Amino acid sequence: MNIDNVYIALLHHPVYNKRGDIVTTAVTNMDIHDISRAARSYGVKCFYIVTPIEKQHQFVKRIIRHWQKGYGVAYNPSRKKAFDIVDIKSSLEDVVEDISGKSGRSVHLVTTSATSRGCLTTYEDLKKVIMEDRENYLLVFGTGWGIAEEVIKGADFLLEPIRGSTDYNHLSVRSAVSISLDRLFGRR
Amino acid sequence: MNIDNVYIALLHHPVYNKRGDIVTTAVTNMDIHDISRAARSYGVKCFYIVTPIEKQHQFVKRIIRHWQKGYGVAYNPSRKKAFDIVDIKSSLEDVVEDISGKSGRSVHLVTTSATSRGCLTTYEDLKKVIMEDRENYLLVFGTGWGIAEEVIKGADFLLEPIRGSTDYNHLSVRSAVSISLDRLFGRR
Repeated sequence: MNIDNVYIALLHHPVYNKRGDIVTTAVTNMDIHDISRAARSYGVKCFYIVTPIEKQHQFVKRIIRHWQKGYGVAYNPSRKKAFDIVDIKSSLEDVVEDISGKSGRSVHLVTTSATSRGCLTTYEDLKKVIMEDRENYLLVFGTGWGIAEEVIKGADFLLEPIRGSTDYNHLSVRSAVSISLDRLFGRR
Repeated sequence: MNIDNVYIALLHHPVYNKRGDIVTTAVTNMDIHDISRAARSYGVKCFYIVTPIEKQHQFVKRIIRHWQKGYGVAYNPSRKKAFDIVDIKSSLEDVVEDISGKSGRSVHLVTTSATSRGCLTTYEDLKKVIMEDRENYLLVFGTGWGIAEEVIKGADFLLEPIRGSTDYNHLSVRSAVSISLDRLFGRR
Protein backbone atom coordinates (compact mmCIF):
# COMPACT_ATOMS: atom_id res chain seq x y z
CA MET A 1 0.00 0.00 0.00
CA ASN A 2 1.26 3.43 -0.94
CA ILE A 3 -0.18 6.38 0.88
CA ASP A 4 0.28 8.60 -2.13
CA ASN A 5 -1.53 11.55 -0.61
CA VAL A 6 0.75 11.82 2.44
CA TYR A 7 3.88 13.97 2.63
CA ILE A 8 6.33 14.91 5.40
CA ALA A 9 8.10 18.22 5.96
CA LEU A 10 10.96 18.64 8.44
CA LEU A 11 10.96 22.31 9.34
CA HIS A 12 14.22 24.17 10.11
CA HIS A 13 12.57 27.59 9.99
CA PRO A 14 10.53 29.08 11.64
CA VAL A 15 11.21 27.04 14.80
CA TYR A 16 12.04 27.94 18.42
CA ASN A 17 15.35 27.66 20.18
CA LYS A 18 15.48 26.80 23.88
CA ARG A 19 14.88 30.45 24.86
CA GLY A 20 11.76 30.69 22.71
CA ASP A 21 13.33 32.85 19.98
CA ILE A 22 12.44 32.06 16.38
CA VAL A 23 15.54 30.67 14.66
CA THR A 24 16.76 28.61 11.72
CA THR A 25 18.30 25.29 12.82
CA ALA A 26 20.99 23.40 10.91
CA VAL A 27 20.07 20.37 8.81
CA THR A 28 21.59 17.20 10.28
CA ASN A 29 22.71 14.24 8.24
CA MET A 30 21.09 11.71 10.58
CA ASP A 31 17.66 13.32 10.18
CA ILE A 32 17.82 12.86 6.42
CA HIS A 33 18.81 9.19 6.73
CA ASP A 34 16.44 8.12 9.49
CA ILE A 35 13.39 10.03 8.34
CA SER A 36 13.75 9.07 4.67
CA ARG A 37 14.04 5.39 5.66
CA ALA A 38 10.95 5.60 7.89
CA ALA A 39 9.01 7.60 5.28
CA ARG A 40 9.87 5.04 2.60
CA SER A 41 8.90 2.13 4.87
CA TYR A 42 5.47 3.62 5.53
CA GLY A 43 4.80 4.62 1.91
CA VAL A 44 5.02 8.41 2.27
CA LYS A 45 5.05 10.08 -1.16
CA CYS A 46 7.77 12.66 -0.49
CA PHE A 47 9.91 13.86 2.44
CA TYR A 48 10.73 17.58 2.23
CA ILE A 49 13.56 19.19 4.16
CA VAL A 50 12.67 22.85 4.68
CA THR A 51 15.32 25.52 5.20
CA PRO A 52 15.78 28.99 3.69
CA ILE A 53 19.58 28.69 3.84
CA GLU A 54 21.05 28.13 0.39
CA LYS A 55 24.29 26.58 1.71
CA GLN A 56 22.21 23.91 3.43
CA HIS A 57 20.48 23.13 0.15
CA GLN A 58 23.88 22.41 -1.38
CA PHE A 59 24.83 20.25 1.64
CA VAL A 60 21.63 18.18 1.40
CA LYS A 61 21.90 17.79 -2.36
CA ARG A 62 25.48 16.54 -1.98
CA ILE A 63 24.34 13.88 0.50
CA ILE A 64 21.43 12.83 -1.71
CA ARG A 65 23.76 12.59 -4.72
CA HIS A 66 26.21 10.37 -2.81
CA TRP A 67 23.51 7.81 -2.02
CA GLN A 68 21.73 8.08 -5.38
CA LYS A 69 24.58 8.26 -7.84
CA GLY A 70 27.89 8.02 -5.98
CA TYR A 71 29.65 5.29 -4.03
CA GLY A 72 26.58 4.85 -1.81
CA VAL A 73 24.50 3.15 -4.53
CA ALA A 74 26.77 0.10 -4.66
CA TYR A 75 27.49 0.13 -0.92
CA ASN A 76 23.85 0.23 0.15
CA PRO A 77 21.20 0.14 -2.61
CA SER A 78 18.31 0.28 -0.12
CA ARG A 79 19.49 3.71 0.96
CA LYS A 80 19.06 4.92 -2.62
CA LYS A 81 15.38 3.96 -2.48
CA ALA A 82 14.96 5.98 0.70
CA PHE A 83 16.71 9.01 -0.80
CA ASP A 84 14.55 8.82 -3.95
CA ILE A 85 11.71 10.46 -2.01
CA VAL A 86 13.79 13.27 -0.41
CA ASP A 87 13.54 16.86 -1.63
CA ILE A 88 14.56 20.23 -0.23
CA LYS A 89 12.61 23.50 -0.29
CA SER A 90 13.11 27.01 1.09
CA SER A 91 9.75 27.37 2.83
CA LEU A 92 6.59 25.52 3.75
CA GLU A 93 4.79 27.62 1.11
CA ASP A 94 7.16 26.23 -1.53
CA VAL A 95 6.41 22.69 -0.34
CA VAL A 96 2.65 23.23 -0.56
CA GLU A 97 3.03 24.74 -4.03
CA ASP A 98 5.16 21.81 -5.17
CA ILE A 99 2.64 19.23 -3.94
CA SER A 100 -0.45 20.97 -5.29
CA GLY A 101 1.31 21.74 -8.57
CA LYS A 102 2.31 18.11 -9.15
CA SER A 103 -0.88 16.48 -7.89
CA GLY A 104 -3.48 19.06 -8.89
CA ARG A 105 -5.11 18.60 -5.49
CA SER A 106 -5.13 20.86 -2.44
CA VAL A 107 -2.89 20.32 0.59
CA HIS A 108 -3.99 20.08 4.23
CA LEU A 109 -1.34 21.09 6.75
CA VAL A 110 -0.97 18.82 9.80
CA THR A 111 1.33 20.26 12.49
CA THR A 112 2.83 18.37 15.42
CA SER A 113 3.95 19.39 18.89
CA ALA A 114 5.35 17.73 22.02
CA THR A 115 3.16 19.89 24.28
CA SER A 116 -0.55 19.53 24.80
CA ARG A 117 -3.00 22.36 24.05
CA GLY A 118 -6.59 22.88 22.80
CA CYS A 119 -8.14 21.54 19.58
CA LEU A 120 -5.92 18.52 19.09
CA THR A 121 -6.58 15.87 16.48
CA THR A 122 -6.01 12.26 17.58
CA TYR A 123 -3.98 9.82 15.49
CA GLU A 124 -7.10 7.70 15.10
CA ASP A 125 -9.14 10.59 13.68
CA LEU A 126 -6.38 11.77 11.35
CA LYS A 127 -5.95 8.24 10.03
CA LYS A 128 -9.65 8.06 9.15
CA VAL A 129 -9.59 11.46 7.45
CA ILE A 130 -6.52 10.56 5.35
CA MET A 131 -7.92 7.18 4.32
CA GLU A 132 -11.27 8.56 3.26
CA ASP A 133 -10.07 11.68 1.50
CA ARG A 134 -8.11 11.91 -1.73
CA GLU A 135 -6.68 15.34 -1.01
CA ASN A 136 -3.10 15.75 0.20
CA TYR A 137 -1.90 15.76 3.80
CA LEU A 138 1.43 17.30 4.75
CA LEU A 139 2.71 16.25 8.19
CA VAL A 140 5.00 18.96 9.53
CA PHE A 141 7.61 18.13 12.17
CA GLY A 142 9.75 20.76 13.88
CA THR A 143 13.43 20.76 14.75
CA GLY A 144 15.01 22.72 17.62
CA TRP A 145 12.45 23.42 20.34
CA GLY A 146 9.45 23.01 18.03
CA ILE A 147 7.40 24.61 15.26
CA ALA A 148 6.69 28.36 15.55
CA GLU A 149 3.18 29.23 16.73
CA GLU A 150 2.38 31.14 13.53
CA VAL A 151 2.71 27.91 11.53
CA ILE A 152 0.60 25.92 13.99
CA LYS A 153 -2.13 28.60 13.96
CA GLY A 154 -2.27 28.59 10.16
CA ALA A 155 -2.51 24.80 9.90
CA ASP A 156 -5.62 22.67 9.37
CA PHE A 157 -4.77 20.19 12.13
CA LEU A 158 -2.59 20.00 15.24
CA LEU A 159 -1.85 16.37 16.03
CA GLU A 160 -1.93 15.19 19.67
CA PRO A 161 1.51 14.84 21.31
CA ILE A 162 3.03 11.37 21.48
CA ARG A 163 2.79 10.17 25.05
CA GLY A 164 4.97 7.35 26.28
CA SER A 165 4.24 5.83 29.67
CA THR A 166 5.92 8.57 31.75
CA ASP A 167 5.74 12.36 31.97
CA TYR A 168 9.12 12.64 30.26
CA ASN A 169 8.47 13.65 26.65
CA HIS A 170 11.72 14.54 24.96
CA LEU A 171 11.79 12.26 21.96
CA SER A 172 14.14 13.09 19.10
CA VAL A 173 12.37 14.29 15.96
CA ARG A 174 13.61 11.09 14.29
CA SER A 175 11.78 9.00 16.92
CA ALA A 176 8.69 11.22 16.76
CA VAL A 177 8.38 10.89 12.98
CA SER A 178 8.85 7.10 13.15
CA ILE A 179 6.25 6.64 15.88
CA SER A 180 3.76 8.96 14.16
CA LEU A 181 4.02 7.06 10.87
CA ASP A 182 3.62 3.75 12.68
CA ARG A 183 0.54 4.98 14.56
CA LEU A 184 -1.02 6.20 11.32
CA PHE A 185 0.03 3.57 8.79
CA GLY A 186 1.72 0.63 10.56
CA ARG A 187 0.47 -2.91 9.90
CA ARG A 188 -0.18 -4.87 13.08
CA MET B 1 3.59 4.33 34.90
CA ASN B 2 7.07 2.84 35.08
CA ILE B 3 7.67 -0.47 33.38
CA ASP B 4 10.30 -1.41 35.91
CA ASN B 5 10.71 -4.95 34.59
CA VAL B 6 11.65 -3.89 31.05
CA TYR B 7 15.20 -3.28 29.81
CA ILE B 8 16.77 -2.57 26.44
CA ALA B 9 20.12 -3.77 25.08
CA LEU B 10 21.69 -2.36 21.93
CA LEU B 11 23.98 -5.09 20.63
CA HIS B 12 27.26 -4.25 18.86
CA HIS B 13 28.55 -7.85 19.02
CA PRO B 14 27.78 -10.48 17.82
CA VAL B 15 26.00 -8.89 14.84
CA TYR B 16 26.24 -9.35 11.06
CA ASN B 17 27.84 -7.05 8.53
CA LYS B 18 26.36 -6.74 5.03
CA ARG B 19 28.21 -9.87 3.86
CA GLY B 20 26.84 -11.96 6.71
CA ASP B 21 30.09 -12.13 8.69
CA ILE B 22 29.89 -11.79 12.46
CA VAL B 23 31.47 -8.49 13.46
CA THR B 24 31.63 -5.85 16.18
CA THR B 25 30.11 -2.52 15.09
CA ALA B 26 31.12 0.88 16.42
CA VAL B 27 28.95 2.64 19.00
CA THR B 28 27.41 5.80 17.54
CA ASN B 29 26.65 8.91 19.54
CA MET B 30 23.19 9.36 17.98
CA ASP B 31 22.09 5.87 19.08
CA ILE B 32 22.87 6.72 22.69
CA HIS B 33 20.93 10.00 22.53
CA ASP B 34 17.87 8.84 20.62
CA ILE B 35 17.42 5.48 22.30
CA SER B 36 17.96 6.81 25.84
CA ARG B 37 15.36 9.55 25.21
CA ALA B 38 12.84 7.03 23.84
CA ALA B 39 13.59 4.54 26.63
CA ARG B 40 13.11 7.24 29.26
CA SER B 41 9.85 8.42 27.64
CA TYR B 42 8.39 4.93 27.74
CA GLY B 43 9.57 4.13 31.28
CA VAL B 44 12.22 1.52 30.48
CA LYS B 45 14.30 0.69 33.58
CA CYS B 46 17.74 0.66 31.95
CA PHE B 47 19.25 0.97 28.46
CA TYR B 48 22.42 -1.09 28.05
CA ILE B 49 24.93 -0.51 25.29
CA VAL B 50 26.72 -3.80 24.62
CA THR B 51 30.23 -3.95 23.16
CA PRO B 52 33.31 -5.94 24.11
CA ILE B 53 35.65 -3.13 23.02
CA GLU B 54 37.15 -1.35 26.01
CA LYS B 55 37.93 1.86 24.07
CA GLN B 56 34.24 2.16 23.23
CA HIS B 57 33.38 1.87 26.92
CA GLN B 58 35.58 4.90 27.58
CA PHE B 59 33.94 6.76 24.67
CA VAL B 60 30.41 6.06 25.94
CA LYS B 61 31.31 6.94 29.52
CA ARG B 62 32.76 10.26 28.38
CA ILE B 63 29.52 11.12 26.57
CA ILE B 64 27.41 10.10 29.56
CA ARG B 65 29.60 12.19 31.88
CA HIS B 66 29.22 15.25 29.64
CA TRP B 67 25.43 15.15 29.87
CA GLN B 68 25.28 14.09 33.51
CA LYS B 69 28.00 16.20 35.11
CA GLY B 70 29.57 18.43 32.50
CA TYR B 71 28.37 21.41 30.46
CA GLY B 72 25.42 19.38 29.17
CA VAL B 73 23.54 19.46 32.50
CA ALA B 74 23.00 23.21 32.36
CA TYR B 75 22.54 23.29 28.59
CA ASN B 76 19.88 20.58 28.48
CA PRO B 77 18.74 19.12 31.83
CA SER B 78 16.23 16.77 30.19
CA ARG B 79 19.11 15.01 28.47
CA LYS B 80 20.59 14.22 31.89
CA LYS B 81 17.40 12.36 32.84
CA ALA B 82 17.68 10.27 29.67
CA PHE B 83 21.34 9.48 30.33
CA ASP B 84 20.58 8.45 33.93
CA ILE B 85 19.28 5.11 32.63
CA VAL B 86 22.20 4.37 30.24
CA ASP B 87 24.82 1.76 31.10
CA ILE B 88 27.47 -0.10 29.12
CA LYS B 89 28.43 -3.78 29.33
CA SER B 90 30.83 -6.08 27.50
CA SER B 91 28.36 -8.84 26.66
CA LEU B 92 24.70 -9.81 26.80
CA GLU B 93 25.62 -12.27 29.57
CA ASP B 94 26.95 -9.35 31.64
CA VAL B 95 23.70 -7.47 31.08
CA VAL B 96 21.59 -10.43 32.20
CA GLU B 97 23.79 -10.88 35.27
CA ASP B 98 23.51 -7.19 36.14
CA ILE B 99 19.70 -7.21 35.89
CA SER B 100 19.16 -10.46 37.79
CA GLY B 101 21.74 -9.44 40.41
CA LYS B 102 20.06 -6.09 41.09
CA SER B 103 16.44 -7.27 40.90
CA GLY B 104 16.71 -10.80 42.26
CA ARG B 105 14.44 -11.97 39.45
CA SER B 106 15.17 -13.89 36.29
CA VAL B 107 15.54 -12.29 32.85
CA HIS B 108 13.68 -13.25 29.67
CA LEU B 109 15.51 -12.42 26.46
CA VAL B 110 13.40 -10.86 23.66
CA THR B 111 15.23 -10.59 20.35
CA THR B 112 14.19 -8.51 17.35
CA SER B 113 14.73 -8.85 13.61
CA ALA B 114 13.74 -7.04 10.43
CA THR B 115 13.16 -10.33 8.60
CA SER B 116 10.26 -12.69 9.09
CA ARG B 117 10.74 -16.32 10.16
CA GLY B 118 9.02 -19.04 12.24
CA CYS B 119 7.88 -18.79 15.87
CA LEU B 120 7.40 -15.05 16.08
CA THR B 121 5.82 -13.32 19.04
CA THR B 122 3.43 -10.47 18.22
CA TYR B 123 3.67 -7.10 19.96
CA GLU B 124 0.20 -7.68 21.40
CA ASP B 125 1.18 -11.00 22.96
CA LEU B 126 4.47 -9.70 24.36
CA LYS B 127 2.67 -6.75 25.90
CA LYS B 128 0.26 -9.07 27.73
CA VAL B 129 3.10 -11.27 28.97
CA ILE B 130 5.11 -8.30 30.28
CA MET B 131 2.11 -6.72 31.99
CA GLU B 132 1.05 -9.93 33.73
CA ASP B 133 4.48 -11.13 34.77
CA ARG B 134 6.82 -9.61 37.33
CA GLU B 135 9.95 -11.18 35.91
CA ASN B 136 12.33 -9.12 33.78
CA TYR B 137 12.22 -8.68 30.02
CA LEU B 138 15.29 -7.59 28.08
CA LEU B 139 14.52 -6.31 24.56
CA VAL B 140 17.60 -6.82 22.38
CA PHE B 141 18.12 -4.69 19.25
CA GLY B 142 20.92 -5.31 16.78
CA THR B 143 23.18 -2.85 15.00
CA GLY B 144 24.86 -3.46 11.61
CA TRP B 145 22.90 -6.02 9.57
CA GLY B 146 21.19 -7.56 12.62
CA ILE B 147 21.62 -9.82 15.64
CA ALA B 148 23.66 -13.03 15.14
CA GLU B 149 21.57 -16.21 14.82
CA GLU B 150 23.18 -17.79 17.91
CA VAL B 151 21.69 -15.01 20.09
CA ILE B 152 18.25 -15.32 18.48
CA LYS B 153 18.27 -19.11 18.93
CA GLY B 154 19.17 -18.80 22.60
CA ALA B 155 16.44 -16.21 23.33
CA ASP B 156 13.00 -16.78 24.88
CA PHE B 157 11.17 -14.72 22.28
CA LEU B 158 11.68 -13.41 18.76
CA LEU B 159 9.49 -10.38 18.19
CA GLU B 160 7.66 -9.97 14.85
CA PRO B 161 9.32 -7.52 12.43
CA ILE B 162 7.92 -4.01 12.24
CA ARG B 163 5.99 -3.71 9.00
CA GLY B 164 5.21 -0.32 7.56
CA SER B 165 2.81 -0.09 4.66
CA THR B 166 5.28 -1.12 1.93
CA ASP B 167 7.73 -3.97 1.36
CA TYR B 168 10.65 -1.66 2.10
CA ASN B 169 11.84 -2.45 5.62
CA HIS B 170 15.09 -0.68 6.31
CA LEU B 171 14.35 1.34 9.40
CA SER B 172 17.24 2.67 11.45
CA VAL B 173 17.69 0.92 14.79
CA ARG B 174 16.74 4.25 16.42
CA SER B 175 13.39 4.20 14.59
CA ALA B 176 12.87 0.50 15.31
CA VAL B 177 13.41 0.92 19.07
CA SER B 178 11.09 3.95 19.17
CA ILE B 179 8.29 2.19 17.28
CA SER B 180 8.65 -1.01 19.33
CA LEU B 181 8.38 0.89 22.61
CA ASP B 182 5.35 2.79 21.35
CA ARG B 183 3.64 -0.41 20.20
CA LEU B 184 4.26 -2.02 23.59
CA PHE B 185 3.81 0.87 26.03
CA GLY B 186 2.47 3.96 24.20
CA ARG B 187 -0.65 5.68 25.52
CA ARG B 188 -3.29 6.30 22.87
